[in-house]
Amino acid sequence: MTQIRLEHDSLGEVAVPADAYYGVQTRRALDNFHISGIPMSHYPRMINALAYVKMAAAEANASLGLLDEDKSRAICRACEEILDGRLHDQFVVDVVQGGAGTSANMNTNEVVCNRALELLGHAKGEYEHLHPLNHVNMSQSTNDVYPSALNIALILDIRELIDAMDYLRKAFRRKGEEFADVIKMGRTQLQDAVPMTLGQEFTAWAVTIGEDMQRLNEAQALVHEINMGATAIGTGLNSHPDYARTVTEKLVQLTTLQLISSPDLVEATQDTGAYVQLSGVLKRAAVKLSKICNDLRLLSSGPRCGLNEINLPPMQPGSSIMPGKVNPVIPEVVNQVAFTVIGHDMTVTMACEAGQLELNVMEPIIGYSLFQSMNMLRRACLTLADKCVSGITANRERCREMVEHSIGLVTALNPYLGYEKSAEIAKEAMKTGGSVYEIVLEKGYLSREELDDVLKPENMVKPRYVHRP
Amino acid sequence: MTQIRLEHDSLGEVAVPADAYYGVQTRRALDNFHISGIPMSHYPRMINALAYVKMAAAEANASLGLLDEDKSRAICRACEEILDGRLHDQFVVDVVQGGAGTSANMNTNEVVCNRALELLGHAKGEYEHLHPLNHVNMSQSTNDVYPSALNIALILDIRELIDAMDYLRKAFRRKGEEFADVIKMGRTQLQDAVPMTLGQEFTAWAVTIGEDMQRLNEAQALVHEINMGATAIGTGLNSHPDYARTVTEKLVQLTTLQLISSPDLVEATQDTGAYVQLSGVLKRAAVKLSKICNDLRLLSSGPRCGLNEINLPPMQPGSSIMPGKVNPVIPEVVNQVAFTVIGHDMTVTMACEAGQLELNVMEPIIGYSLFQSMNMLRRACLTLADKCVSGITANRERCREMVEHSIGLVTALNPYLGYEKSAEIAKEAMKTGGSVYEIVLEKGYLSREELDDVLKPENMVKPRYVHRP
Amino acid sequence: MTQIRLEHDSLGEVAVPADAYYGVQTRRALDNFHISGIPMSHYPRMINALAYVKMAAAEANASLGLLDEDKSRAICRACEEILDGRLHDQFVVDVVQGGAGTSANMNTNEVVCNRALELLGHAKGEYEHLHPLNHVNMSQSTNDVYPSALNIALILDIRELIDAMDYLRKAFRRKGEEFADVIKMGRTQLQDAVPMTLGQEFTAWAVTIGEDMQRLNEAQALVHEINMGATAIGTGLNSHPDYARTVTEKLVQLTTLQLISSPDLVEATQDTGAYVQLSGVLKRAAVKLSKICNDLRLLSSGPRCGLNEINLPPMQPGSSIMPGKVNPVIPEVVNQVAFTVIGHDMTVTMACEAGQLELNVMEPIIGYSLFQSMNMLRRACLTLADKCVSGITANRERCREMVEHSIGLVTALNPYLGYEKSAEIAKEAMKTGGSVYEIVLEKGYLSREELDDVLKPENMVKPRYVHRP
Amino acid sequence: MTQIRLEHDSLGEVAVPADAYYGVQTRRALDNFHISGIPMSHYPRMINALAYVKMAAAEANASLGLLDEDKSRAICRACEEILDGRLHDQFVVDVVQGGAGTSANMNTNEVVCNRALELLGHAKGEYEHLHPLNHVNMSQSTNDVYPSALNIALILDIRELIDAMDYLRKAFRRKGEEFADVIKMGRTQLQDAVPMTLGQEFTAWAVTIGEDMQRLNEAQALVHEINMGATAIGTGLNSHPDYARTVTEKLVQLTTLQLISSPDLVEATQDTGAYVQLSGVLKRAAVKLSKICNDLRLLSSGPRCGLNEINLPPMQPGSSIMPGKVNPVIPEVVNQVAFTVIGHDMTVTMACEAGQLELNVMEPIIGYSLFQSMNMLRRACLTLADKCVSGITANRERCREMVEHSIGLVTALNPYLGYEKSAEIAKEAMKTGGSVYEIVLEKGYLSREELDDVLKPENMVKPRYVHRP
Repeated sequence: MTQIRLEHDSLGEVAVPADAYYGVQTRRALDNFHISGIPMSHYPRMINALAYVKMAAAEANASLGLLDEDKSRAICRACEEILDGRLHDQFVVDVVQGGAGTSANMNTNEVVCNRALELLGHAKGEYEHLHPLNHVNMSQSTNDVYPSALNIALILDIRELIDAMDYLRKAFRRKGEEFADVIKMGRTQLQDAVPMTLGQEFTAWAVTIGEDMQRLNEAQALVHEINMGATAIGTGLNSHPDYARTVTEKLVQLTTLQLISSPDLVEATQDTGAYVQLSGVLKRAAVKLSKICNDLRLLSSGPRCGLNEINLPPMQPGSSIMPGKVNPVIPEVVNQVAFTVIGHDMTVTMACEAGQLELNVMEPIIGYSLFQSMNMLRRACLTLADKCVSGITANRERCREMVEHSIGLVTALNPYLGYEKSAEIAKEAMKTGGSVYEIVLEKGYLSREELDDVLKPENMVKPRYVHRP
Repeated sequence: MTQIRLEHDSLGEVAVPADAYYGVQTRRALDNFHISGIPMSHYPRMINALAYVKMAAAEANASLGLLDEDKSRAICRACEEILDGRLHDQFVVDVVQGGAGTSANMNTNEVVCNRALELLGHAKGEYEHLHPLNHVNMSQSTNDVYPSALNIALILDIRELIDAMDYLRKAFRRKGEEFADVIKMGRTQLQDAVPMTLGQEFTAWAVTIGEDMQRLNEAQALVHEINMGATAIGTGLNSHPDYARTVTEKLVQLTTLQLISSPDLVEATQDTGAYVQLSGVLKRAAVKLSKICNDLRLLSSGPRCGLNEINLPPMQPGSSIMPGKVNPVIPEVVNQVAFTVIGHDMTVTMACEAGQLELNVMEPIIGYSLFQSMNMLRRACLTLADKCVSGITANRERCREMVEHSIGLVTALNPYLGYEKSAEIAKEAMKTGGSVYEIVLEKGYLSREELDDVLKPENMVKPRYVHRP
Repeated sequence: MTQIRLEHDSLGEVAVPADAYYGVQTRRALDNFHISGIPMSHYPRMINALAYVKMAAAEANASLGLLDEDKSRAICRACEEILDGRLHDQFVVDVVQGGAGTSANMNTNEVVCNRALELLGHAKGEYEHLHPLNHVNMSQSTNDVYPSALNIALILDIRELIDAMDYLRKAFRRKGEEFADVIKMGRTQLQDAVPMTLGQEFTAWAVTIGEDMQRLNEAQALVHEINMGATAIGTGLNSHPDYARTVTEKLVQLTTLQLISSPDLVEATQDTGAYVQLSGVLKRAAVKLSKICNDLRLLSSGPRCGLNEINLPPMQPGSSIMPGKVNPVIPEVVNQVAFTVIGHDMTVTMACEAGQLELNVMEPIIGYSLFQSMNMLRRACLTLADKCVSGITANRERCREMVEHSIGLVTALNPYLGYEKSAEIAKEAMKTGGSVYEIVLEKGYLSREELDDVLKPENMVKPRYVHRP
Repeated sequence: MTQIRLEHDSLGEVAVPADAYYGVQTRRALDNFHISGIPMSHYPRMINALAYVKMAAAEANASLGLLDEDKSRAICRACEEILDGRLHDQFVVDVVQGGAGTSANMNTNEVVCNRALELLGHAKGEYEHLHPLNHVNMSQSTNDVYPSALNIALILDIRELIDAMDYLRKAFRRKGEEFADVIKMGRTQLQDAVPMTLGQEFTAWAVTIGEDMQRLNEAQALVHEINMGATAIGTGLNSHPDYARTVTEKLVQLTTLQLISSPDLVEATQDTGAYVQLSGVLKRAAVKLSKICNDLRLLSSGPRCGLNEINLPPMQPGSSIMPGKVNPVIPEVVNQVAFTVIGHDMTVTMACEAGQLELNVMEPIIGYSLFQSMNMLRRACLTLADKCVSGITANRERCREMVEHSIGLVTALNPYLGYEKSAEIAKEAMKTGGSVYEIVLEKGYLSREELDDVLKPENMVKPRYVHRP
């Protein structure tokens, strides 16, 4: 039989496992929220961020003379143990919870308190010596603790995501260099357009990912603003006038992040604009990644009845019925990640819109959705780089043949022959199946030398001086 | 100088153009809502639906002894004029409005009232003889009038949309028949799969559109439920116990639609479930149409560096710089319509979620979004049918060549040689560039007769008895 | 050291743990997809559905003379073990995967095959006796197996969700009866409107949930259509002409579900319309639930500075800083579930739109999103019923006082005094702070008896004959 | 009978009204796209932006010696006329169009060309003297012209929107100052929390709008990057090596905007990241505005059965059945605008994801959606400021009474009595209906002087030194 201890709160008495570091309020939350089935412990970064916040608050309270030094030290030591990865299994409440994160905050208060009690030589639950609310939560409210911790965790996740994007960017960049001399047809609206190099195509993808990294960096700056000291609604009730500044400084020291205190704490406590911005930027990255994966799948389509310009590395047999078929499974899974991120953005949008008056109670689903999006995007970037991009090869001959065979070459004749004559040549080529080159020669519009110069693919992939014949 | 007349309401006195059929409340709404810039008069179907509602109410009130016969008759005659297309220019308030449609309802009450006053021999504005609220709006509230009229207008729009979808469905069906004997490669994941006919492809699109028509029909059934008699919040305050039934019967007679009275008027007055359902079905149709257009653009890609299986009819020169280029502009515009409809679904979703207690005040944006979606979808279907599908031609030779050249043929060898041997053949064909047919013969796995039978494209586009060699 | 066995496929040789029931292709997929971190085994219903499909196929193949009886029996026995809940830990591939479910299908083929091999007296991996592709996957393709299994799993999930909704519906219904005589003010646009009963309010919520159950039932009907026999692209290549019918019959027998074979298998194999429809209906249910929870939170706002008409049962202390505060944590978590479901609908929408030609490769994310939505919605319904609705109490006195004190009562005077006089009374009450009752008496518009009759709250909550004074 | 002139393009001959400045390709587009029914002329800013682009190109081409001076001058003069607001009625093609804006570009080329022909002394249609493609479109492609013009138009729209947001911000700021001394209860999760001032509430809204203005400014910076010189796909084919730089400089001079040339024109031509970013920021602004409007509606709810802390100015009678009811119609319409903007963001997201290879053909719907969003948001901001915020009054007495009556005051006792004792007081107040003040006195926890100091509302709206009794 499990040993228990009894704890009480304003709603009454509740039994808690005797060896649990969490207490009565965590126990209630555990009963209340069977929603996602995913406990807070799945998000160690969030738990650590909460530990940082509790530690910074204890230090600030002590330095302002509000909390005894020994209590503060005990709280800090308990937090350090959490940061060392211990006690994480005690964070049991469902990540999807009502109450604006109160249960997450209380879970933290109780675990820190009970571990600190032990360090002070007391038994768990002897809250007369150290109290989860009066001491561990001193000068704090869920409404500043939870979003501040969320921001710290988000910053670390964003950085890791940016690293993964950079890894992918470099993979595309390398292929861009490798394919710098592969001449191929560019396509607009899926119709043959004009020549380019495969290197230009891969480089463009590298560039576009680099731009998303910049946008993520900007969004990251926004979540550096925290609202510690706001307490319940931003008015700072029950906090010392120097507390907001002090606790933020402590947090900066502990985390080494450039956190800043929000200039208007009332606004900061109700506003979730930074989250909707971050989510929007993640959506942007997802949209771009999805477009790139669509392109990779198009260019590798075939092998014989498709474009077949590039080969993706075969990762697994593609079909349970079609022998020899190899599918672009990596880009396909990245597309699905992108759709998930875009869906999460909708969730975040609705959750942010649902804020009311002095608080947005939907923060837990906002955090959960953002964490999921960043996790999946990060894995998708690494997977795409390692299991697809870095192994891509080009079908050089096929690419060049399509250019030479193409009608799109007539575009280069525009400056010499004018649009209408060029269009006629295109029309004739289309009708007869002939080549642009031959038709122009036949008609005597340009000499062979002129034509060779104008239609040389390498001359068509960048601006050049037009030498009118 | 414009002649004016003075009218008043509980907020005070307001000048109205002397010749205007609308009155003080319309005038205020006109000032209040400069949002979309689109007046109600752009939606004649909604105006007519409001006229039907006012007429049915007047008749019901008269038959229940609540309204004088002559007043009722005058109201009905004014409504008939509106149904004849007159006075529509008097419906001036912005379609996007606050107040749950109060302004739309008041605009209607005032126009009907002033025209009826004239018919009764009075001047506009002499409301002591006939009052926009006491008489024209008798037994009614915006909260039953507006959604009931909206539903009537939606039903007619849905029907017209279904007709347009049927028109498109038949265009695909006809092409399905025309292309019944065009053998081509089927593709999954953009990779060569196994043979099929182009007719199967076009027929599938016809079938899928047919299914959407069924879904729309089901959604249409939901908006046949109206809440006339609910008055303000569904309790029917100020209405006669027989009124809800009577006015619904009158509306059925007038519109010849199978409208029914909602069994729980409190629920019906706050619920917008039918709209979110309808919007979801429109989104479904948009998703399918977009997928079909993507396919049309893929299959017609090229002409020389793409799949080039079909030709879309050229509708306009494709490029201002690339002579001879012809783009799939019609499918492209349909894709854009689809994205718009999907966006509108999000608007409708948020608006429906925003209902509070006894009413959803966001009905105007719901109606506007649905009307726009249906309008654009209808035009897109007709445009796609007439300017694209009906003119599509097949490149038969190209289609067959790709099949014969394809490695996907090995799938048909599975039942004879097993998956692993088939995969080896595929691999060898891939490596050597050779044909499946030749490799099998060379290896002596099957005789030429067996092989001809197994690999005959026509034999591969349907189930068949496997004659194990 | 882990014992291994070597397996090979067309891409080469791979080491698999010797005691694993899965094989080479599962092993590759395990390496390829580190995306969600959630293995298939988290979705036992999907695994069971795949087992049903494999069993039905084996039986159909045997009955058509294509598969030896003993092989078929061994496959079926292995499937039965899975249905008994064994071997689920062998389903290790990530639920989010590229390849349209090929890895899920192969994981199943390999587990079934290796277990069947054991039952036949062979060792795992001795595929010369029974082959995962040639035998377990006979007459099948991922492209019919995966969506058919998905549909079976969805049906069961939908049913369970409908049960949970019914449970919630009944909780609201019971409260509707309990509160049938609680007179309160109805509100439209958050402004005082006219009286109603609290019972009408709760009953309306019960009714609205009942309507969503109907919609879910309709959506459920759509996923009863399966495409077994389609094989790769719907043409049925490599399947016996009687196979589609036979395997569907077998599946009906095994599952006791009224599954039907799709009339156009080419269409069915590429179409995901049933999923977008189901997702749209789940979104609708989410929108409605969210609206109800918003209402519950509004009506229980306070206790002293809000509406305070009802009390939600206190589930946990509400604040880490505000003693005595109790928050509506259960409705709040249900709102968050609703936003998640709406986000998933966006994911499903984009995934469905991304289908190309003969297949929609995004099915895994579609399935995953739908499963998550249904799971969370189901839990939300049960939680809301048990931990909130069933414990709600009404503040009867407060509700009645607000009605009697309200200006909205003037609406009931409309039929007697006309709109304009009624509006004047409202205005005066507003200005003076007086009661409507007193002002009417004072002005002598109606006698006390008449007034008592007209303004009796119980008379105002339903239609009635107007007795003009 | 209308006079016509015949024009031809590569698809054949078409009749154009003789007096039309547009030509054959516009005529075709007019027939092809009956989608939104809204002609380009509804967006004069886009037309002017196209005129700027054509002018800059003509000047650049002339300065590079590619275009005769007199031709260039004529083109520029025609463009100036357009910028003066003339010829706008000649821009007739539907804003929703296939072809990536080719029709919009061709409509511009043709109008400019025909007007320039007249200025040169020729008749319309005499393209041998000046050609819409060879001269007006020289060195250009739709694929650089259209997005560059779109960006210019967007910048101007963004600026105008920022101005409108600033106007609204200031209105909130002024009210924040006016209400600086109005003490009221803050609410979290709709439950009574702790005191604050109404001024803090309004100021927070001002601050939050100010932050959105910053985000919009950042998004504006992104659309300053243009891709002129990219021609068809970013390779600059048919353009002079100095052209991209030159034309950008000319555009900067003409528009006085700090436009810059994209460093990777291939990337820039296919990328729509700036649009998805801008749309995301508009969505963010919409989310915030919607939240604010929800709050305004909550705080003004009542008048007698709601919170009733503030009064919105009455803009129109609120109901056709409930006399005296005044509804928050202005915030309501702003909510609807917000939902529309959020819907448009979904449209933009899908359109951006649909880009393929070297181009995103969906630009027209992206532009249209963004223009609509900005237009509606701008009008919503101005309307909200003028017709709502600036007329808001506070119910000071009501606000203060609720604070004094509130149980939330116990929070301020925390530092003196601890959480548990404070919670007991709250519980007792709740049970007995008594006041916190009286109960504390009664229990003798604090002296009256201490209590007066601690519970003085003005002391509770900001941090303060805790003087422990």
